[in-house]
Amino acid sequence: MAPSFPTNSGFTPAPPTALYSEVQNSRIDHSIPLPSVLKNPFKMVDGPQTSSVGNPDQIAKLFPHLFGQPSLTLLPIQSDTLQPSHKLKIGVVLSGGQAPGGHNVISGIFDYLQDLAKGSILYGFRGGPAGIMKCKYLQLTSHYIHPYRNQGGFDMIRSGRDKIETPDQFKQAEETVQKLDLDGLVVIGGDDSNTNACLLAEYFRSKNIKTRVIGCPKTIDGDLKCKEVPTSFGFDTACKIYAEMIGNVMIDARSTGKYYHFVRLMGRAASHITLECALQTHPNITIIGEEVAAKKLTLKDVTDYIVDIICKRAEVNYSYGVILIPEGLIDFIPEAQHLIAELNEIMASCSVDEGGLWKNKLTDQSLKLYEFLPQAIREQLMLERDPHGNVQVAKIETEKMLIQMVETELEKRKHEGTYKAVFKGQSHFFGYEGRCGLPTNFDSTYCYALGYGAGALLQSGKTALISSVGNLCAPVEEWTVGGTALTSLMDVERRHGKFKPVIKKAMVELEGAPFKEFASLRDEWALKNHYISPGPIQFTGPGSDAISYTLGLELGAQP
Amino acid sequence: MAPSFPTNSGFTPAPPTALYSEVQNSRIDHSIPLPSVLKNPFKMVDGPQTSSVGNPDQIAKLFPHLFGQPSLTLLPIQSDTLQPSHKLKIGVVLSGGQAPGGHNVISGIFDYLQDLAKGSILYGFRGGPAGIMKCKYLQLTSHYIHPYRNQGGFDMIRSGRDKIETPDQFKQAEETVQKLDLDGLVVIGGDDSNTNACLLAEYFRSKNIKTRVIGCPKTIDGDLKCKEVPTSFGFDTACKIYAEMIGNVMIDARSTGKYYHFVRLMGRAASHITLECALQTHPNITIIGEEVAAKKLTLKDVTDYIVDIICKRAEVNYSYGVILIPEGLIDFIPEAQHLIAELNEIMASCSVDEGGLWKNKLTDQSLKLYEFLPQAIREQLMLERDPHGNVQVAKIETEKMLIQMVETELEKRKHEGTYKAVFKGQSHFFGYEGRCGLPTNFDSTYCYALGYGAGALLQSGKTALISSVGNLCAPVEEWTVGGTALTSLMDVERRHGKFKPVIKKAMVELEGAPFKEFASLRDEWALKNHYISPGPIQFTGPGSDAISYTLGLELGAQP
Repeated sequence: MAPSFPTNSGFTPAPPTALYSEVQNSRIDHSIPLPSVLKNPFKMVDGPQTSSVGNPDQIAKLFPHLFGQPSLTLLPIQSDTLQPSHKLKIGVVLSGGQAPGGHNVISGIFDYLQDLAKGSILYGFRGGPAGIMKCKYLQLTSHYIHPYRNQGGFDMIRSGRDKIETPDQFKQAEETVQKLDLDGLVVIGGDDSNTNACLLAEYFRSKNIKTRVIGCPKTIDGDLKCKEVPTSFGFDTACKIYAEMIGNVMIDARSTGKYYHFVRLMGRAASHITLECALQTHPNITIIGEEVAAKKLTLKDVTDYIVDIICKRAEVNYSYGVILIPEGLIDFIPEAQHLIAELNEIMASCSVDEGGLWKNKLTDQSLKLYEFLPQAIREQLMLERDPHGNVQVAKIETEKMLIQMVETELEKRKHEGTYKAVFKGQSHFFGYEGRCGLPTNFDSTYCYALGYGAGALLQSGKTALISSVGNLCAPVEEWTVGGTALTSLMDVERRHGKFKPVIKKAMVELEGAPFKEFASLRDEWALKNHYISPGPIQFTGPGSDAISYTLGLELGAQP
Repeated sequence: MAPSFPTNSGFTPAPPTALYSEVQNSRIDHSIPLPSVLKNPFKMVDGPQTSSVGNPDQIAKLFPHLFGQPSLTLLPIQSDTLQPSHKLKIGVVLSGGQAPGGHNVISGIFDYLQDLAKGSILYGFRGGPAGIMKCKYLQLTSHYIHPYRNQGGFDMIRSGRDKIETPDQFKQAEETVQKLDLDGLVVIGGDDSNTNACLLAEYFRSKNIKTRVIGCPKTIDGDLKCKEVPTSFGFDTACKIYAEMIGNVMIDARSTGKYYHFVRLMGRAASHITLECALQTHPNITIIGEEVAAKKLTLKDVTDYIVDIICKRAEVNYSYGVILIPEGLIDFIPEAQHLIAELNEIMASCSVDEGGLWKNKLTDQSLKLYEFLPQAIREQLMLERDPHGNVQVAKIETEKMLIQMVETELEKRKHEGTYKAVFKGQSHFFGYEGRCGLPTNFDSTYCYALGYGAGALLQSGKTALISSVGNLCAPVEEWTVGGTALTSLMDVERRHGKFKPVIKKAMVELEGAPFKEFASLRDEWALKNHYISPGPIQFTGPGSDAISYTLGLELGAQP
């Protein structure tokens, strides 16, 4: 059954389910449990007045209509019938990079409206926030949504990276919500998108527009979380996909006995994915960016740390291993940041001479680092520039760079007689494979509850909250549902002389339970091979309802 | 429960199952069905005398004691009790690259001996054929084997790439089998290893040594197969792992709408993996090496084929897609082979001058190709040499090379006005992730039957057969079991002035059902997006017992 859909401007029609795999098809019909508070009559109970993470005065100025509003929790009430309901017109938008489960947030909103606000209309804005600004949308029907239930990807309405920033753009958004007569808008996105959602909510409130705005926490990177929002959706699935691959590579390493596998994992800003994958698989070496930054390690320090372990392993005749590296490693190393900044300036102001005289303009520290880098990385630093003339740090293949640096250092130790084995590196980058996988049972259920809850918040006329589902270690029936004031998650950053509101990314806490668990075990993992192979994600049977280690440890569950 | 194992010379002790993931643990206890012929009394029925695939006279000379022997089939007999049994001493060796299911072949042999030859001993040779030559082995016990049941990898006894080739090496093997008093040896490997197994069988027979040798068909590449051996183990699991990743990348491509993903897949000699993954996922473009070779395509032809489709897709506003490429593509392109041969010769005989005068030594055709190649690939061709001074073709990142060539051609068309969209390529290589995954239900069951059958063949005193399990589209109970004369699979190749026996690699047949199915659909896949996302391998529930498309189509099942 192929849902019909206009195919203008390159937009993909929904895939005919006749072309679904057996597993995809079986997932469509998978029934999702709801937290019991959502299945019965409930009331919304406000908490105390909120403040912000930092700079409350500035946040109060930026959000005069919203600052201080309470977060709230849904609580069951005794009643023979469900709450009376009124029809709503709601819009939903996917913002930023894909994360498994996005379709279920939308199904959750849709089903809430079907169940408790009969006759409501749900619009999907196409291609991210640009769809709001350009008023590109479609009406989501039961028939249209059906094939996307429990499926990965954001292809139902696609996503986009545009932001609603300028006064003109806010005006466009206003026109759209007025035209569609929207009671509410759900923004599914990461830290930036939720900040944007709050700005929209403030704007609409300030102009007496009825449209309320609710956010939903999305990012595989896992860096949007707080006490009330214990995890962002997609993190669970993406980590399990990466961990499956890492586990396979580990068994390969052990079977072959001759390769060191350097695995780069997604996560530019925070190393949550790398930490979670380490806890799931027990690699020999794991680099956590936040630790590198806290200890102010240099690239040489990181290289030496890896090389020392390789040498110790060689003494017990292990010439193989697995090493996990966060994508954003370079960003965590202060000296690398300095070098890149200096190079950007030099390249912008003068031409680089063949003879290398330009190097005199580098500070001593940066020159030393530059000379330490492998040739290929030096070339990458000199050649590739983004449109603004900056080094494209994202394009640096950190895992290959580390292999080359480790090789060089091991050669040195070989000459010194402190290393006698043979080193062969293999590089991997696990990225795109994880963003659009079929969501795990956890992400499917969590997202559905986030969406269903968002529907409830909008029907109660709430705005500028992020849909919040908690108590995630308990059975689904006992999960809590509520909304957290977006302003309470905010701080300000000074940009171009102005205060900008931001939801700070949640970094790996070196004093947090997940990192401490890892730190207490890593020395053992380094020398012994306590590899664990999680295997492919299962949708039924053993392991199918496991939650991530990070979440379990943060919520105080036993590891 | 960690089985005890000596930890000398870097050999890994069996992983303690306390460190297994839930899925790994659940697989250990997964019970494997046996073909019914193996569960009841059976007899071995010889077929007709065999010949060889080619050059029977030469094969007869190379295998005077074995040539012509019949293949055989197990058939059920009426009997109240199982066959009488005698104790055996058997050795087993894993040879070459890992493939999911190897551990189950060993469990199958072990369980056969337990069930039908009580008191037998099974030795595992460590680290591949070198373990035979150096007499490195361990006795495999129920306790030791247990944690490896249905697990991926070859880490139970490890593998190796050594070959038993010289007279001295045959002598060493002889000493080992005499020392251990072996009745039989099972060689689990690919085409080369099974040829080697046959040479060992001939050698033992010629010297009146009692040790029989049985082969088992292993390779994820899927290029060891024939009528009696419908598939090699590991192919099913590896393809499903790659197809999971490809499916995820496809949904990512469709969700983002702005990347062409170039995916290189394992398979140096044959493109079976690429073809199978295409049938499972429906990519927009798939390059099959055998077709490129048959049509004598140049790299420019391949590039144009890709670019033409990208341009046509741009006309219907698709700026994204997924392209599958076999690892061995370069080896299928005659002009590339010529260029590489010429470069090898030039580099060996003279130094390469900066001015580029050396290029005059290239033939016109090779020079043209050289100039057509992207700069990075030219450098790779000039710089990287293996110890024999040859270009390391395996190190050429074909997917990145194609991206660059496609980019260049699209730029040209942009200037000509025939292409107006934006092209962004993303490269992937799926390789090591697939060799050591948890075997699918199919590979688990197939391997167990191969091993169990190998035990039966040895107990009947058979030698120089490859364990053969057939009728694989039927329920497991109806699978056939037998042994195929290894000499019947052979031909000769002339190497260094001598005839060498070889089991020819099974290539993708352009007239075979899998390729024809693909060829009949690819034009539709090119322009429409009929992506299928197989999802993660399931061990229970929908899809968990599916066999590969290649196997199904070759055996005449409906696609």
